[in-house]
Amino acid sequence: MAMARMPILLAVALVAAAASCSAWEPTIRMPTAAAVADAVAPVIHALRPLLGSGGQLGSRGGVPCDSWRLGVEAYNVRDWKTVPANCEGYVGHYMLGKHFRRDSKVVIDQAIAYLDSLKLSDNGKEVWVFDIDETTLSNLPYYATHGFGARPYNATSFDAYVLEGTAPALPETKRLYHKLLAVGVKPVFITGRTEDKRAITVANLRNEGIAGWMNLLLKQPGVHGTAVSYKSGERQKLQDAGYVIIGNIGDQWSDILGAPEGARTFKLPDPMYYIG
Amino acid sequence: MAMARMPILLAVALVAAAASCSAWEPTIRMPTAAAVADAVAPVIHALRPLLGSGGQLGSRGGVPCDSWRLGVEAYNVRDWKTVPANCEGYVGHYMLGKHFRRDSKVVIDQAIAYLDSLKLSDNGKEVWVFDIDETTLSNLPYYATHGFGARPYNATSFDAYVLEGTAPALPETKRLYHKLLAVGVKPVFITGRTEDKRAITVANLRNEGIAGWMNLLLKQPGVHGTAVSYKSGERQKLQDAGYVIIGNIGDQWSDILGAPEGARTFKLPDPMYYIG
Repeated sequence: MAMARMPILLAVALVAAAASCSAWEPTIRMPTAAAVADAVAPVIHALRPLLGSGGQLGSRGGVPCDSWRLGVEAYNVRDWKTVPANCEGYVGHYMLGKHFRRDSKVVIDQAIAYLDSLKLSDNGKEVWVFDIDETTLSNLPYYATHGFGARPYNATSFDAYVLEGTAPALPETKRLYHKLLAVGVKPVFITGRTEDKRAITVANLRNEGIAGWMNLLLKQPGVHGTAVSYKSGERQKLQDAGYVIIGNIGDQWSDILGAPEGARTFKLPDPMYYIG
Repeated sequence: MAMARMPILLAVALVAAAASCSAWEPTIRMPTAAAVADAVAPVIHALRPLLGSGGQLGSRGGVPCDSWRLGVEAYNVRDWKTVPANCEGYVGHYMLGKHFRRDSKVVIDQAIAYLDSLKLSDNGKEVWVFDIDETTLSNLPYYATHGFGARPYNATSFDAYVLEGTAPALPETKRLYHKLLAVGVKPVFITGRTEDKRAITVANLRNEGIAGWMNLLLKQPGVHGTAVSYKSGERQKLQDAGYVIIGNIGDQWSDILGAPEGARTFKLPDPMYYIG
């Protein structure tokens, strides 16, 4: 519902904006669940996002949101718990507009150019590691109604969303995935999702047109430690089994750091949450 | 000259933009599975370049410049020779406007927050590694008259500029530098500049208010190989001599990658050139 209403409100704001070019502060409110619950909805400056910089300084000061996001992507900003409060609207526009998609496309274009540059062995041992959440499947429908990462993580409601199995595939990643299948490189998923979510994850991926993977490695009961140690450990097992990890893609630095990283790594944008 | 002319061009462009507000493309689509499935190329919003983001999609198409820059900073775009031709203006605006400074400030704020979180030993063994070009000293006065990285590197003219010894200090880095001195952490420069440029480099740094370093390590004659191997080798020597590298900052990923990286690394923005 919240997602469905967004374009209408934006369209209204745009019409209003077009009618008076000098009105630089036409504000609308995000129709999120929080808007009802808290009665303090984030204020969205309708024009800024559409003109490229997306309320970068926030409506009431605070961290400059575009610079904060760059800091996250370049691994300068680490160990953050939630999106800065003044950046909820910025991140929302970034994710819902064309910006996130455009940024993702550059990453995947690079990945495909890299793939095209390789002389593949065709020996069945070449694999590409994918993370799942925010890499292959998008949980944006959840985050769009939960503050775009500006509110503390709620395992209960997030798990309930995951168990719906309705997360859309990220189209740019899907493009890479199918290209890999076409050239004989085997996709391997290494995800922080736990083993009990295997059935719904498989169903969700298949419903979204993603199939044909070699492995879907979910976190087993009793596995603790950091995402880096878990994921690099799984990559080590692949390597020990004779596989060559020619690529590794994730939305978190913890998806791709830690030896063996794979021959080349790719970091998809994710300004909504941090996993260390 | 180029720097002086830029604001005038921007002002002209802004006036032109204000005169034609109707040139918008208010087409916001939700990234639902259905919407993304048939999404095509990003729509170019004519006003965006003129209102703060500096021609992110280029005036004649090509790579979207803001996404390309993000790709560079997140280490997705590698081994590039020059700034994409359509992004010269974008990079120029980015560097000459407030955007670069704002992005740099977030990085240095993170570095100082990290430093503040440490319990320093005060044993005289804690060091912080700095790169020089585009990390401590800015060569923007040179690049502003040489295409902002969109033209092939010219060693002759660049060296002539370096030998003037007039490169300004980057103010955010200078803030970190002085903070480190104040808390007893010793700065160490590891630079790709060669030994024959020691005198002018020392003079340039001092003229810019930067002094009190422990080491200024320049590239010795006969040293070959990649920047990563050279710089990580110098860091290894520091470590072998009993120093603890608590931080490491550079504008290139090759400044900070390669064991030992240092306890924490920081990547300053640099969309003008790439060193592998």
